[in-house]
Amino acid sequence: MATQKPALAKGTRDFGPKEVQKRKYILNSIESVFKKFGFMPLETPAMENLATLEGKYGDEGDKLLFRILNSGDYLKDLKEFQNNTSIDTTNLPSSTGNVSDLDSKAASKFISEKGLRYDLTVPFARYVVMNRNDITFPFKRYQMQPVWRADRPQKGRYREFWQCDADVVGSDSLINEVELIQIYYEVFTTLGIDFKIRVNNRKILEGIAEYFNCNHRFSEFIIIIDKLDKIGYEGVFKELNDAGFINDSNRAILDSPELGLFKEGIQQIYPTFESQLKRLNSLFEDRNSEIGSHGVSELEKVLKLLDKSCKQFVELDIFLARGLSYYTGSILEIVATKGTLKSSIGGGGRYDNLTGIFGLPNVSGVGISFGLDRIYDVMEELNLFPNTVNRASSTQVLFCHFDEATQEYCLPALKVLRDAGIAAEVYPDVIRKKPIAKQLDYANALNIPYAAIAGETEMQQHVFNVKNLQTGEQTLIGTEELIRLINPFI
Amino acid sequence: MATQKPALAKGTRDFGPKEVQKRKYILNSIESVFKKFGFMPLETPAMENLATLEGKYGDEGDKLLFRILNSGDYLKDLKEFQNNTSIDTTNLPSSTGNVSDLDSKAASKFISEKGLRYDLTVPFARYVVMNRNDITFPFKRYQMQPVWRADRPQKGRYREFWQCDADVVGSDSLINEVELIQIYYEVFTTLGIDFKIRVNNRKILEGIAEYFNCNHRFSEFIIIIDKLDKIGYEGVFKELNDAGFINDSNRAILDSPELGLFKEGIQQIYPTFESQLKRLNSLFEDRNSEIGSHGVSELEKVLKLLDKSCKQFVELDIFLARGLSYYTGSILEIVATKGTLKSSIGGGGRYDNLTGIFGLPNVSGVGISFGLDRIYDVMEELNLFPNTVNRASSTQVLFCHFDEATQEYCLPALKVLRDAGIAAEVYPDVIRKKPIAKQLDYANALNIPYAAIAGETEMQQHVFNVKNLQTGEQTLIGTEELIRLINPFI
Repeated sequence: MATQKPALAKGTRDFGPKEVQKRKYILNSIESVFKKFGFMPLETPAMENLATLEGKYGDEGDKLLFRILNSGDYLKDLKEFQNNTSIDTTNLPSSTGNVSDLDSKAASKFISEKGLRYDLTVPFARYVVMNRNDITFPFKRYQMQPVWRADRPQKGRYREFWQCDADVVGSDSLINEVELIQIYYEVFTTLGIDFKIRVNNRKILEGIAEYFNCNHRFSEFIIIIDKLDKIGYEGVFKELNDAGFINDSNRAILDSPELGLFKEGIQQIYPTFESQLKRLNSLFEDRNSEIGSHGVSELEKVLKLLDKSCKQFVELDIFLARGLSYYTGSILEIVATKGTLKSSIGGGGRYDNLTGIFGLPNVSGVGISFGLDRIYDVMEELNLFPNTVNRASSTQVLFCHFDEATQEYCLPALKVLRDAGIAAEVYPDVIRKKPIAKQLDYANALNIPYAAIAGETEMQQHVFNVKNLQTGEQTLIGTEELIRLINPFI
Repeated sequence: MATQKPALAKGTRDFGPKEVQKRKYILNSIESVFKKFGFMPLETPAMENLATLEGKYGDEGDKLLFRILNSGDYLKDLKEFQNNTSIDTTNLPSSTGNVSDLDSKAASKFISEKGLRYDLTVPFARYVVMNRNDITFPFKRYQMQPVWRADRPQKGRYREFWQCDADVVGSDSLINEVELIQIYYEVFTTLGIDFKIRVNNRKILEGIAEYFNCNHRFSEFIIIIDKLDKIGYEGVFKELNDAGFINDSNRAILDSPELGLFKEGIQQIYPTFESQLKRLNSLFEDRNSEIGSHGVSELEKVLKLLDKSCKQFVELDIFLARGLSYYTGSILEIVATKGTLKSSIGGGGRYDNLTGIFGLPNVSGVGISFGLDRIYDVMEELNLFPNTVNRASSTQVLFCHFDEATQEYCLPALKVLRDAGIAAEVYPDVIRKKPIAKQLDYANALNIPYAAIAGETEMQQHVFNVKNLQTGEQTLIGTEELIRLINPFI
């Protein structure tokens, strides 16, 4: 076979030892909080039937699904179809039998029936419906797995990336919102990331739409509001104006400092959450907007039940919509507040009828998601990973030697260390030329803190020449002392 | 949208909370041993270029690759090819332009350029070659990730399953074999699985082939030997005889009790590893088989360096070939010795030139693999999972209540427990009818050990009525006492 120059598939990444350690540190931190809050793990397969995936993410999502070619003679069905002119051909591949007339989208129905997981929510809904009789509701599940999207790769956007979700299904209680906000608080506090938690409620957005008499064009209204990150407040106000939702005389209501919409470049005293809600309430009462008032009272309840230490990180952002039209109640978003990457590092909300499409109606759910890659980037930029995580190897001691005999002398000590729970290695090869230099190079490259060197003399004295590779300090000690040097608590 | 009855893709599985907890217990046990032995984590993408995967697993493997349909107008290249008759058409789809003349295998070159990871070894080799300049050799990496094969699904065989590999590349030392055997020993001892470790060496197999003058037909010889599990010793001897490798007069040499080949139905005193090696050595000396003698001396060295407690689990099986023609030295296999599932639960060996195909020759590697699904099945059958792992939820205490007020009363205590590191929950909904029965049902379904019930009285007295759900015992205690009840060491 000819030699190949290997490459990664476009938009995918390898994670070497250091990166895995750091990613696992984030994942473990999130997971242990999920568990402490009573969430249970779920894992679903990478491949789902296309019937499960298609139509769930909009036309754009359908385009971004990775489809898996059927195994074996996958063209068989397509050929059969093309040879059988009695079938209804609307919207299906041409039946001229000619390849040039085939349409990629239509043909794929015949040659692919599975796709790669696009998110964790749809597989979760499928799982809930398939296991409805065995699940105890409310069902609190977390799921941390990769997903795949055939997006155009660019900086910070990959075709394979991880999602970490926690959802509660089968409970209408706002306590769930409170718990999910506290999970965010606890995870980001643990990780040392500065953050704020933006909250809103779809009912408040609907109330605002009612206030401006545009509830009949609600989705249009949301689409404009959702452009905030791209076009800024002035842009949003202009588009709302152009679309006839607001005008010069009533925009001041939205624009008032009491509602807390932040205008770029203008220093503004941020109102309290309570004063924002109070102002909203009076607006909604003016217009008898029941839905708006309902949204305010939901947020009031969440706010009331939040722990004080957590509450100070929570802000009401009445323009927070998070695009996803399936949120029906609370909407949450986490933003990192330090570093150059100030974008969202997590988000979520309440959605009704998640499982309806799979035949289980009226199941309310609420969930949050953590953006692993963005959290990683923030922590990397701000140097937030602890030192213990910041190295590729877990090894504490490398045993170094000069020949077969001294190498063999290291083995029982190596075992004693490992039995004491200390990660340790012996350099596997016997090096004839500059043995110690070569072995210390290895230890230094892997950031191994100690080298235990065994020469003829050490072997005779039943000790090792232990070198601290950071300070250069050396000391002749036995195995027990070596253990205590590394872990004084054993 | 119409309601769909959702289903899993064929050959794939969901892992619910209990299964994930148990699978993670196994994975964590393996991982912590890998780390203790100085192995470093690597993760590669699920998708690889087909150029990386194809031709690495034989024709059969190529058939079992899951291929991913190119995104967008994936038929474009195929159409262009078919309209361009100037290209060499050997072995490529027909250029008549007619779908019926298309060949699935040939067409896939045009419509698919990525495939799903088939094992962890080839992506590892790709990683090593791509990062050769940054890697410190010897490179000890472990990798625990799912792989996908379009195999016909059957009991115990899935299209998505996990592999857990540890390999050392860039070291010829037999110390690596010793370490890998000790990793097996430590993992299976930790998991409580009864096992034995079968070892062999390709050089010994080659020596045996030389002994019978059939080294020029070595691969034929190995194919027969490798049928052992399917056709038994008598079957193998018959086929070796039919193929002219052995005859009635010399088969007794292989068959002698001193070599330790076990005959079904015949009680036999197992020879010691040492006596087997001694016998082999004399056979190889008889025929001046240098390669055979070399194999014996390699195994002697491994045996000599193995820790005593581990050594007793190691057996020499001179017919162990593990099919894979790429093993060039040591061959290892782990077998569970209790329960109905007595098949292999892990294996590995030494291979030279793993990275040669990607342009990096002469890199020797040696590695082992753990079969997660089989280990899981053995542990499940023999009830080896510890009780703490054997439940879906990590929650220790469920706070139960009667109304909004008592629910709210639970929240500060809930926080104190969690801050002490105790997983706890409050039932999110307020239940009007038989509230406690319903909440205890939830706790029991999730095997939550304690319920902390808050009624009007408890609230006034600043206590909870704490019920041990196993014994039924109840006690009125405050939050601090509750913490000590659950974790006396705090």
